[in-house]
Amino acid sequence: MTIDDVRLTPRPHPPSQGKLYGVGLGPGAADLMTLRAARLIENASVVAYPALAGGDSFARSIAADLIAATCREIVMDVPMTVERAPAQAAYDKGAADIAAALDAGEDVICLCEGDPFFYGSFMYVFARLSDKYRVEVVPGVTSITACAASAGMPLAARNERLTVLPGPLPEDELRARIDGAESVVIMKVGRHMAKIRSVIEVLGLTDRAVYVERATLPQEVVVPLADAPEIAPYFSMILLTKGADPWL
Amino acid sequence: MTIDDVRLTPRPHPPSQGKLYGVGLGPGAADLMTLRAARLIENASVVAYPALAGGDSFARSIAADLIAATCREIVMDVPMTVERAPAQAAYDKGAADIAAALDAGEDVICLCEGDPFFYGSFMYVFARLSDKYRVEVVPGVTSITACAASAGMPLAARNERLTVLPGPLPEDELRARIDGAESVVIMKVGRHMAKIRSVIEVLGLTDRAVYVERATLPQEVVVPLADAPEIAPYFSMILLTKGADPWL
Repeated sequence: MTIDDVRLTPRPHPPSQGKLYGVGLGPGAADLMTLRAARLIENASVVAYPALAGGDSFARSIAADLIAATCREIVMDVPMTVERAPAQAAYDKGAADIAAALDAGEDVICLCEGDPFFYGSFMYVFARLSDKYRVEVVPGVTSITACAASAGMPLAARNERLTVLPGPLPEDELRARIDGAESVVIMKVGRHMAKIRSVIEVLGLTDRAVYVERATLPQEVVVPLADAPEIAPYFSMILLTKGADPWL
Repeated sequence: MTIDDVRLTPRPHPPSQGKLYGVGLGPGAADLMTLRAARLIENASVVAYPALAGGDSFARSIAADLIAATCREIVMDVPMTVERAPAQAAYDKGAADIAAALDAGEDVICLCEGDPFFYGSFMYVFARLSDKYRVEVVPGVTSITACAASAGMPLAARNERLTVLPGPLPEDELRARIDGAESVVIMKVGRHMAKIRSVIEVLGLTDRAVYVERATLPQEVVVPLADAPEIAPYFSMILLTKGADPWL
């Protein structure tokens, strides 16, 4: 992404063209959706969302009660592969379907768990369509503050720094980044749990870390890192704070 | 803050005691509040919020339309001083007022702009009361994803790292942290604008940075950093991305 992608100046669009909304749904509990998101979904005639190929869509499940029976649904079946090409092809197809609806004058509400621009899949749709269509992004509650709320663990205060690291990063980089940070959030723990746990242990920070899984959902888990499972689901996170700055 | 503050195990509380809610209101636009926050505020008999001493409360202004006429309001007049003692005294007083309401069996809804645990003032109330009262934190949309949405600028995708830095940090530290980061959010720009702009210029990153002021409010400003004002308000932010990882 470069600054050239920033849509600082509105561009002219045919008035007959529909508008694309990238709507953040929050971390999982349906009532952690914003009022704006709920209103847009209730009134939608077309929604779009990613789904695990052949499987469920977490985004759709959050919004399910608000989607009208008459609403048309564009499903982007995204395969979870290490190579990017299959996922890129799925977003190419999804973007083409969305574009067809926009060209026909329909607004399209793209559903995104969490926030569309914070590790959200909406970015792949945005990258393909934002130069040709009107796009509005509705921010949502991210998983990081939802996890902090569930854990009763403030993330950052005053002049504290906060670093967000994806769990798939190489071990050396994780260690260096955690070592140089104050408050740390490690996203997408999943199958990287053993590596991450080992890095935190080597740094002597295990007793400062909390593991949160499926925050705000009925199956939510919040435990000290020492008690976390060996294998974590994709929607899991580790919060770590060094308490460098007394926050009272 | 230490891990000891994490409320991982519910503690027994007298059933007659009220419950304290720390409720995130989002970045400013009233409809970027969550459904849960709106429901809690509409039904509140006591709300509490910080205000600039002798002045307005941004938090209250976001929620204003939802507060019942009969609702009692606990105002924490927080002076904006460099020394901490006057603000600490204000939170001591506010916490005592809130505690009195909780002891009387009333629930108290503490209003917080953004998210309560993300640079939010609720942390000062939480630190004073969470060991004695039941507390629930309702996460909110943070200013960082709201600013990204307004700027049309994705914050982080896939394995990108994101660093959040408060503007008041010393110049040397800002430079080192920005230099070692991928995507950067600089919060609380305010009177630190000249210093921050100089750091970003020295690093050759000015054309990668966007300035956002009062995101989602009618007075919102979104401009390239080069066009940002010399003096920024407190509620302003700089987003910077190096585009190290192609995000398509």
